[in-house]
Amino acid sequence: MWTLDLSTRERVAFVDITGEVERLVRGADDGVVVVFVPHTTAGVTINENADPSVRHDLTTALERLVPADLPFTHAEGNSDAHVKAGLMGSSVTVPVLHGSLQLGTWQGIYFAEFDGPRRRRVLVTFVATRS
Amino acid sequence: MWTLDLSTRERVAFVDITGEVERLVRGADDGVVVVFVPHTTAGVTINENADPSVRHDLTTALERLVPADLPFTHAEGNSDAHVKAGLMGSSVTVPVLHGSLQLGTWQGIYFAEFDGPRRRRVLVTFVATRS
Amino acid sequence: MWTLDLSTRERVAFVDITGEVERLVRGADDGVVVVFVPHTTAGVTINENADPSVRHDLTTALERLVPADLPFTHAEGNSDAHVKAGLMGSSVTVPVLHGSLQLGTWQGIYFAEFDGPRRRRVLVTFVATRS
Repeated sequence: MWTLDLSTRERVAFVDITGEVERLVRGADDGVVVVFVPHTTAGVTINENADPSVRHDLTTALERLVPADLPFTHAEGNSDAHVKAGLMGSSVTVPVLHGSLQLGTWQGIYFAEFDGPRRRRVLVTFVATRS
Repeated sequence: MWTLDLSTRERVAFVDITGEVERLVRGADDGVVVVFVPHTTAGVTINENADPSVRHDLTTALERLVPADLPFTHAEGNSDAHVKAGLMGSSVTVPVLHGSLQLGTWQGIYFAEFDGPRRRRVLVTFVATRS
Repeated sequence: MWTLDLSTRERVAFVDITGEVERLVRGADDGVVVVFVPHTTAGVTINENADPSVRHDLTTALERLVPADLPFTHAEGNSDAHVKAGLMGSSVTVPVLHGSLQLGTWQGIYFAEFDGPRRRRVLVTFVATRS
């Protein structure tokens, strides 16, 4: 298991971590890599890597789905971030072949920050299909 | 693969199963654990374990996202439960190091009931990174 | 890793791929199977296999959650598809015992098309719990 450390700069941000994950599994054989976020107000998602407007639109849509001013009870005032993290999920699993991520042409792996700016961690585990 | 049996007491409930999963992987080595829910009106999610108001707020937000009175066609009248289960997902995958779940400080694993009360099952599979 | 090829016929469609995945893992031993979609306007989800109205209702609910006419900026005009794919997720992981998928009685695996009709691929990886 490897650990990635990162810092986010805004309250809501999608940080591309594809290159870091790619470097970690290089040298591995065949299997899957699990990218796990050990936080409750952030998640991880796979989405388009080419046009940054897609991440902008994802932010817009999530904001509309879970407005910060819903009648929430959690005293810290970041309930929307917990819900958004739940919708995105805490991990993604990607196939690996000969040490290479089998992402589609337009796919990137994004750390999904919903309550930044903060220092965050990502846990990356490679599991081989055979020993 | 292990099976957990549980009973939910309300229509919508988040049941903390972190301790049970933790006990199952104790004694395992390094790898990931997959917690899978074999139902279509329930799911599993990772969220805050400290303040119960976060689960309350998640319930509120999901209720607003998928109201039970949408123009649904499924005759059983629990379409909202199917959609909520789809949004939460049927499994979570968590890294394990020396038999210990690598959850963040504030993370717990929750069985997400959307059409209870019912008797439910959870399938837990540990996959080692190396043999 | 195996590859499934499929063609979708409508803009939004849930295509049952349970049988194909089942056939691929037959002959495998114990473990988990990861079903991964290498696209950014499609995803994969587990939901009810019996009554097709459940998929219809899931379509209705997602359409209401992410209407195509939100103020999106992505020029291709399919931002709603990217968001819906993000909500459903890019992979599902299912336990396998003696080469048999451990799905619940009512569960099926569905390729979730949100910007069809298109030719699509699904990557299927079996990971054994022990060698």
